[in-house]
Amino acid sequence: MSDTCLLVLDADPLPRLDRLAGRARVVHADADSLAEQLPAADVLLVWDFLSDAVKHAWPGRGPRPRWVHTPSAGVDRLLPELAASPETYLTNARGVFDQPIAEYVAGLVLAMAKDFRGSWELHRQRQWRHRETMRVGGTRAVVVGSGPIGRAIGRTLMALGVSVDLVGRTERSGDPEFGRVHGNVALGGLLGRADWVVCVAPLTEESRGLFDAAAFARMKPEARFINVGRGQHVIEKDLVDALNEHRIAGAALDVFAQEPLAAESELWEVPGLLISPHMSGDTIGWRDDLAEQFLDNFDRWEAGEPLLNVVDKGLGYVPST
Amino acid sequence: MSDTCLLVLDADPLPRLDRLAGRARVVHADADSLAEQLPAADVLLVWDFLSDAVKHAWPGRGPRPRWVHTPSAGVDRLLPELAASPETYLTNARGVFDQPIAEYVAGLVLAMAKDFRGSWELHRQRQWRHRETMRVGGTRAVVVGSGPIGRAIGRTLMALGVSVDLVGRTERSGDPEFGRVHGNVALGGLLGRADWVVCVAPLTEESRGLFDAAAFARMKPEARFINVGRGQHVIEKDLVDALNEHRIAGAALDVFAQEPLAAESELWEVPGLLISPHMSGDTIGWRDDLAEQFLDNFDRWEAGEPLLNVVDKGLGYVPST
Repeated sequence: MSDTCLLVLDADPLPRLDRLAGRARVVHADADSLAEQLPAADVLLVWDFLSDAVKHAWPGRGPRPRWVHTPSAGVDRLLPELAASPETYLTNARGVFDQPIAEYVAGLVLAMAKDFRGSWELHRQRQWRHRETMRVGGTRAVVVGSGPIGRAIGRTLMALGVSVDLVGRTERSGDPEFGRVHGNVALGGLLGRADWVVCVAPLTEESRGLFDAAAFARMKPEARFINVGRGQHVIEKDLVDALNEHRIAGAALDVFAQEPLAAESELWEVPGLLISPHMSGDTIGWRDDLAEQFLDNFDRWEAGEPLLNVVDKGLGYVPST
Repeated sequence: MSDTCLLVLDADPLPRLDRLAGRARVVHADADSLAEQLPAADVLLVWDFLSDAVKHAWPGRGPRPRWVHTPSAGVDRLLPELAASPETYLTNARGVFDQPIAEYVAGLVLAMAKDFRGSWELHRQRQWRHRETMRVGGTRAVVVGSGPIGRAIGRTLMALGVSVDLVGRTERSGDPEFGRVHGNVALGGLLGRADWVVCVAPLTEESRGLFDAAAFARMKPEARFINVGRGQHVIEKDLVDALNEHRIAGAALDVFAQEPLAAESELWEVPGLLISPHMSGDTIGWRDDLAEQFLDNFDRWEAGEPLLNVVDKGLGYVPST
């Protein structure tokens, strides 16, 4: 039996953990027991990555795990608390969600352009009503978030003939795929010429509430907004107003300030808004992929090799190399 | 005033015809008057390309127009009747619909993979229900129809990471984009390994009823079928049976044996079937594009230059060069 104590914050069963048999002592925690169990853990796997339990238990008393892994792209449920422990590595699921979310966003763009929801409403009513729809090739998108998911979204939209402005924290030129990556400061000017505005930024103090009344006011009446980042990127009330007043043409939200979205929420009834339940990256087999990614990093940990996908806890994401 | 008599079979107003002022005498016909007006026409523009009036009026009595243009990709409403007049050129709207239909099909593939209709049904019911969805990258499509629309569909799906088998009338190798283009005879073998089966073939005696019980029986239970060709490519009853018995996973039909689809049709209630009203290629501005394409060819006609997009009336489509 290895000396490594792996503490797992569980929600659902964790696939393939048997690969660690004889290599780690696996202990399970729930939100209530986490604080008590943390001091004995060498490694914490936040399998229930939608939980705020770690935030509440950290730093608490006693020694902390040397490594915390979250099988999510965003680490906003762990920060800034974990930043108080500079000796603790934080790693994330960078890479797993790139292509699935890119496909999801491309699907939303095409579905909104071709008015699939309108067709399916008419279908339910057994109505044959021809409409002219929008051509996607030749339109322009702003993708806010220049990490691997944002890049995959941009790449996929470009493959559909969309011109893409990628916006990251800092401006840089000479990007092999996008040419110039715009800095956040350029966002205001870019919003006014976009047909599609896609939010996939990490949630940081800088990006919280980024999409507010002022941002929606800058968009074209024909623009559509897609959020696959975090609900807190959007001032939901401002989006509701913009849609109700037809100041933008539509929106699709996969993430919300409060999840699950309450049945009583006014959002369900907003015209031109498509709601999905935080599933853009979750393709069949995703839990296996996430477990596999953690186990690969565990191999490195055990071998004393540098971990992959180490989050810069000051920035709030894994810096691009 | 020019001597050229341009007869227009009208449904809707034809945009931009004023460009012909002083160059042609433009005469309008409807289904009832067409037979009577045909002998005086030099050129017939079948602006109402959904009409069967030309078929019924042809060849009739007296001289026939030397050139017939249909602003549609398919020419099945004009053949085989026009083939009886070898001296009459038949041209079509080759090119205009390529990218719009490719976007539409890519949108359907993504929408089905990501279960957008399921999300919108849940949305209507104010229900938050997370599901795992399908990854499109790495799946396999068979596109039946190797003309410019089929090629655009194949190209767009490949850009999404889909492996594409393109099927045309005759096998050929060394295609710069697709490598091998399969012949019709290979279709049976290809259907069994496809996640997506897309029909965009020209409607000919060879392709009529191509998608019947035997074809659906060859498909995987996970396969989805998309028809943006002609309704007559499909034995609708056989598709209904395949869907009702879950022998395939879903289908999207944009075209039907009878259009518009009657409110009483059983198709509206078939599980897993998405219905849209023959609109896959009809993006905003399409009528302008179609008029422009005809007018460009009229310029060539007037100048004595060879027409573009001349249909081989034996084959039933414009042969690829």
